[in-house]
Amino acid sequence: MPPVFGKESANASFAGRCVSFPDHRLFWSVKEVTVALNAGVITVSDKGYAGEREDVSGPVLARALADMGAKVLKQTIVPDEPEEIAATLAQWADEGDLDVIFTTGGTGLTPRDQTPEATLKVLDRPVPGLAEVLRSEGYRRTPLAVLSRGVAGLRGKCLIINLPGSPKAVLEGMETLAPILPHAVRMARGVDTEHGPEHDEHEHSHR
Amino acid sequence: MPPVFGKESANASFAGRCVSFPDHRLFWSVKEVTVALNAGVITVSDKGYAGEREDVSGPVLARALADMGAKVLKQTIVPDEPEEIAATLAQWADEGDLDVIFTTGGTGLTPRDQTPEATLKVLDRPVPGLAEVLRSEGYRRTPLAVLSRGVAGLRGKCLIINLPGSPKAVLEGMETLAPILPHAVRMARGVDTEHGPEHDEHEHSHR
Amino acid sequence: MPPVFGKESANASFAGRCVSFPDHRLFWSVKEVTVALNAGVITVSDKGYAGEREDVSGPVLARALADMGAKVLKQTIVPDEPEEIAATLAQWADEGDLDVIFTTGGTGLTPRDQTPEATLKVLDRPVPGLAEVLRSEGYRRTPLAVLSRGVAGLRGKCLIINLPGSPKAVLEGMETLAPILPHAVRMARGVDTEHGPEHDEHEHSHR
Repeated sequence: MPPVFGKESANASFAGRCVSFPDHRLFWSVKEVTVALNAGVITVSDKGYAGEREDVSGPVLARALADMGAKVLKQTIVPDEPEEIAATLAQWADEGDLDVIFTTGGTGLTPRDQTPEATLKVLDRPVPGLAEVLRSEGYRRTPLAVLSRGVAGLRGKCLIINLPGSPKAVLEGMETLAPILPHAVRMARGVDTEHGPEHDEHEHSHR
Repeated sequence: MPPVFGKESANASFAGRCVSFPDHRLFWSVKEVTVALNAGVITVSDKGYAGEREDVSGPVLARALADMGAKVLKQTIVPDEPEEIAATLAQWADEGDLDVIFTTGGTGLTPRDQTPEATLKVLDRPVPGLAEVLRSEGYRRTPLAVLSRGVAGLRGKCLIINLPGSPKAVLEGMETLAPILPHAVRMARGVDTEHGPEHDEHEHSHR
Repeated sequence: MPPVFGKESANASFAGRCVSFPDHRLFWSVKEVTVALNAGVITVSDKGYAGEREDVSGPVLARALADMGAKVLKQTIVPDEPEEIAATLAQWADEGDLDVIFTTGGTGLTPRDQTPEATLKVLDRPVPGLAEVLRSEGYRRTPLAVLSRGVAGLRGKCLIINLPGSPKAVLEGMETLAPILPHAVRMARGVDTEHGPEHDEHEHSHR
């Protein structure tokens, strides 16, 4: 029974461990969720790939995932090349051992920012609400969050989520996703509540 | 002059009738809207279709529509088969007597959840804001609402809207859509305000 | 150092000039943004094109842009013909002198409303968050704002944004976009912060 972290969790006891990052605290809470997440992390960055810039966001993302009880089985850096991004996503998703793959970087408006296009090429079914909520919750902190062109969706049973490139955006995004991710993964695996996630939620933790 | 229901309606008098459902009240209000809605309801559910599970959401949706003054002319249950969903939507929309078709179910992340893909196949023009607002208003109640992959849009003059499968999500979605639906249908029929719906709204009921 | 306008701007001094429009004030603020915006304005309206209706929204949009320090280099009216809309957008974007092209009109649900479809034909990369935030911020004022089907995105380095047809929706949209637009244009030109806009924002004006 791995722990998950979250800002608010009605039935949870807070264990007090936290990821320290300027102005951010991701608290642990223990919830009865029987999901052991296997995750992959891809940093998309020309400069990171070339070694001209330290990759901060990838490790921050991996640590946030580890801290929420996920196992980060794979982690890499790729340049802002759509074909390379798409090939890595497809290979990792198809190998079948990952529940979720996060990318960080390449979601902006510069000509090299093509992570969303690369991701769309390999998705079977979009999950637009995840991209929307990352932007709308981000917007409450900074209007510029709406400029992330990130997408999210499924390839087979593997969830793929684009996060922006900044470490703070990564952490804020993970805060938003933390209460959602375990349920998303459980559904993607085929746990058929049929009535959708709302059903359980409405019964047990409707606010 | 059929009544419409809504949470808030500045110029409306509340008539006090309500749909009873745990924790939900959909109040009636009478507004000067000259739209008589003809609606169709499709429950998408393998188990409902096979008779292994009682279809609660379909009747709840039909009643919510009837209570807002809409006539539910057609109602059915189909399995989670994209071809069957798409064929039913296309046939109903093309017959020309329906202003709006609602689906409930099949919007989640399990492999069988393919209502959005089936719907996209038959849409001429998406109305993304309806899907967005269902998720964003749902998110205020439960974070898991963002996992609905539902879409909305037009096939000809017929509006098609995907709702999640849970009865509560259906009712909450109808609460969100109630103030919007009559205007949407009027526009879809071709009432050309040209300046868009905002024009009238701004003049008469801007909050 | 051109001025930009905005509702809120932590580091800005308000110069007090405003666009007067019923219930609207677009205040000027001076920010250290070294972006000189070149803009184009396209009114999409059958009646405006035919001279049967005065185009109010186009001039309102052009004035709002001028007031925020942008140069409106091109302005025209086209009918609700998708091919004509798409051709004008593509030509203007490809000529290379415009940073951003705004359309007003044709985003609703009537059969003639096809500006989003025309725009999608010429976009290279969507920027969905701009369309989402226009609707979600609009929704706070009037629920009907979600019926705008507008899209936004890039063609090359030129940003294209669909606004609804009403003058009030145009002004409200510009209020929402004002804090975002200069950064969007700077990124689209290729100013590669790599970590996305969040980085700077987080450092300097995180609320």
